[in-house]
Amino acid sequence: MTKEEATSMASSLSPPAIPMELHVVNREKLLKSLRQHLSETSRPLHGFVFLQGGEEQTRHCTDHIELFRQESYFAYLFGVREPGFYGAIDIATGKSILFAPRLPSDYAVWLGEIKPLSYFQERYMVSMVYYTDEIVGVLHDLYKGSGKPLLFLLHGLNTDSDKFSKPAEFEGIDKFETELSTLHPILTECRVLKSDLELALIQFANDISSEAHVEVMRKTRVGMKEYQLESMFLHHSYMYGGCRHCSYTCICATGESSAVLHYGHAAAPNDRTLEDGDMALLDMGAEYNFYGSDITCSFPVNGRFTSDQTLIYNAVLDAHDAVIKAMKPGVGWVDMHKLAEKSILESLKKGSILVGNVDEMMVARLGAAFMPHGLGHLLGIDTHDPGGYPKGTERPKEPGLKSLRTSRELQEGMVITVEPGCYFIDALLIPAMENANTSKIFNHEAIGRFRGFGGVRIESDVLVTANGCKNMTNVPREISEIEAVMAGAPWPLKKSY
Amino acid sequence: MTKEEATSMASSLSPPAIPMELHVVNREKLLKSLRQHLSETSRPLHGFVFLQGGEEQTRHCTDHIELFRQESYFAYLFGVREPGFYGAIDIATGKSILFAPRLPSDYAVWLGEIKPLSYFQERYMVSMVYYTDEIVGVLHDLYKGSGKPLLFLLHGLNTDSDKFSKPAEFEGIDKFETELSTLHPILTECRVLKSDLELALIQFANDISSEAHVEVMRKTRVGMKEYQLESMFLHHSYMYGGCRHCSYTCICATGESSAVLHYGHAAAPNDRTLEDGDMALLDMGAEYNFYGSDITCSFPVNGRFTSDQTLIYNAVLDAHDAVIKAMKPGVGWVDMHKLAEKSILESLKKGSILVGNVDEMMVARLGAAFMPHGLGHLLGIDTHDPGGYPKGTERPKEPGLKSLRTSRELQEGMVITVEPGCYFIDALLIPAMENANTSKIFNHEAIGRFRGFGGVRIESDVLVTANGCKNMTNVPREISEIEAVMAGAPWPLKKSY
Repeated sequence: MTKEEATSMASSLSPPAIPMELHVVNREKLLKSLRQHLSETSRPLHGFVFLQGGEEQTRHCTDHIELFRQESYFAYLFGVREPGFYGAIDIATGKSILFAPRLPSDYAVWLGEIKPLSYFQERYMVSMVYYTDEIVGVLHDLYKGSGKPLLFLLHGLNTDSDKFSKPAEFEGIDKFETELSTLHPILTECRVLKSDLELALIQFANDISSEAHVEVMRKTRVGMKEYQLESMFLHHSYMYGGCRHCSYTCICATGESSAVLHYGHAAAPNDRTLEDGDMALLDMGAEYNFYGSDITCSFPVNGRFTSDQTLIYNAVLDAHDAVIKAMKPGVGWVDMHKLAEKSILESLKKGSILVGNVDEMMVARLGAAFMPHGLGHLLGIDTHDPGGYPKGTERPKEPGLKSLRTSRELQEGMVITVEPGCYFIDALLIPAMENANTSKIFNHEAIGRFRGFGGVRIESDVLVTANGCKNMTNVPREISEIEAVMAGAPWPLKKSY
Repeated sequence: MTKEEATSMASSLSPPAIPMELHVVNREKLLKSLRQHLSETSRPLHGFVFLQGGEEQTRHCTDHIELFRQESYFAYLFGVREPGFYGAIDIATGKSILFAPRLPSDYAVWLGEIKPLSYFQERYMVSMVYYTDEIVGVLHDLYKGSGKPLLFLLHGLNTDSDKFSKPAEFEGIDKFETELSTLHPILTECRVLKSDLELALIQFANDISSEAHVEVMRKTRVGMKEYQLESMFLHHSYMYGGCRHCSYTCICATGESSAVLHYGHAAAPNDRTLEDGDMALLDMGAEYNFYGSDITCSFPVNGRFTSDQTLIYNAVLDAHDAVIKAMKPGVGWVDMHKLAEKSILESLKKGSILVGNVDEMMVARLGAAFMPHGLGHLLGIDTHDPGGYPKGTERPKEPGLKSLRTSRELQEGMVITVEPGCYFIDALLIPAMENANTSKIFNHEAIGRFRGFGGVRIESDVLVTANGCKNMTNVPREISEIEAVMAGAPWPLKKSY
């Protein structure tokens, strides 16, 4: 292959095979953890972990079916891509059982071959497969304890949404004892630390998303619409990575829109036109076999940083790099957030945007005026992966810190986003600039230059290792790298270029 | 611009401005129709049409927000893209009122500028805008009748999904009289006949989707995955047409998968590899400002039709063309379905796949063994637009005919899909071939050649005009056209090529 062919190839990646052992390992991990907990609390080792998978949803009263994506806890344990399943794990024997919906015969005409139960048994590597209308009989037969068989159902709070998971429901559930408090915290904790098989998928999601970000960066032009950047990202990650879903709706914010943290939804649908001099803030991540990525790149749409853009960008990049340098097991995430804040405030002071003592700014929680969101969050099957605040831990209440999705200490095997940002948001800055206590910290004239600037966010997905951490994201970060790639250089940069 | 530049340009289209007058016209049409109905039934011309818009949905217990798409009846009347709205039309005065959600102040930081009510009034061209917590007071003030103000709520059956629309709910609804039976049939009937402004959007959705189909056709190669065809379609229609939503999940079926009518969903996710000799059946349509398209192209993935592929393809194309030739106001859709069936059966007889008298085959409803779905459906804001079976009309019960989504007579202004198909589905053919009454109709040896063939569908979106109809879809249909375009010719074909 010639050098020209190599650099003009659309992608160096292709979707890896999906190892169903991943879900076998997940089930074994849960089983071990749950048995240990039952032993410690002197409870018998019998009963079933019992989960209900997701159902297809139609849009309002119509027959428009939304593309189904499995419920995340069910995906974690069973990896099932089809709707309408239930799943059980026999705590006594460790056997896993899937219950598949019994499909009507005309399914074969409209929706595809009706697969035999053995297909699911083989594909999902479970011990047994039955139909959903056999749940009561099968579980009663398998149960060796006395009295009604015990089902451990999933019930617990998602600390990001403040919603509760829905325990499984089915006809005949009254023939079982049910228990709601044990499973959720244990299963959630299993999800916090990733196995090697899980990490491989998160790495692939990062690889294809990184490549797609580079592709978008290279093709961005003044005069385009923001949604065209979204379209290029979606296409690259589906076409070459087989990623049909994204981890979340793409945030393609340019100019002043880049100060809107969760831009891109239906009421702010990436529809602005890119103007010369704008910064772009692109927060986009593909999902592969349920496992996601969450990456933000910020760059000037015309390919060249101005001095003000350089100032803010490097303030955020320094914070991003400082955090990654400091991350290792045992480090507290609140401390990392403060480290990022302090780094940004110092840069703003160096850039003559702020005046005075940075420690005093920290005490006044001024960092939150520039970065109102948390430094990062656990990442996995959910973009905001659960487990950020296990029972007994408390969410901080101070500005900025209260937005943190976790306050935990880092542990080996966690994947967490590092996403410092610096934004010029009138709704936050004006009150701070008008406040008698904090007004003097601002160089009002300098701040004036940044009205309409928007913001910069730099986000990588980082794995905590035994002695430090590993950045799983691979995109141009240094200004020189970004400008080179936007001018057409290959990524990664080659010395010979 | 040189000829080379013209043919290498990615698209000749760009997204048109969205005319909010469209929704004003829709409201006026409803008002006129509703007032007439009230007069005819000797009821007073007061009260309010009152609808609740859709809400954003999160995925299970997580904070993952699904990209919002407005509920279709609400979209028809108000065109509102944001979630959480209510809308009313004062039947006495014709005034239209939107009720917007009162957003918390931190919305400005996370989700974007909090728009003043005047923004919505101007954008959506309504008479007044208030907050949703003002519904009771505002409507009581506007109401000039005696007693509690009357609300006409939306309640009725969707004959495709067999589900009922959900009447509006809000705090304080007990301070109103409510009426559930009048609005739904009248509003549904309004949606059946399209205005010029609606037709322009459906035409654009057809134009960009047609162009995207041609793009996919041209880039299809043996060895690709089906989902790569989907990705190319989605990208083209979003990148150049601004279409963020599709009318439905893309069906990208190749080889034997093309006999699965609604392939492409999560349990059959367009993941087959294209093989030499396969037919592809691509059923994909983009949506623009709520209005959709629904287009199917069938072609050999290697770009050259075999004689068997030619036989089946032309059988379906002849049926497609015969129906379009016959369509005009007053023509019954059941008759069109039978015309398509008969045309296909005749071709299969000519091709020595079937033997005997075609009229007898029709009496035996043999057409349904090759085309189990209906000939087509109304198209608009919903892919299966409502109104197919108004009260008093009945769904046919015979095989094939029972799948029809409407049995109506055509009227000027209807947009309906014409989508005949011919499939080799074991679940249907084997019983018919084993049945003593129909066995002799089949040339069993010839049929054997088509095991694993899959199927062919050809689908266009057709507007019924005063004297006939107009095909809004513009893709290569003749075999010579498809082979030329797949070999690189521009579309539409130029004489000089």
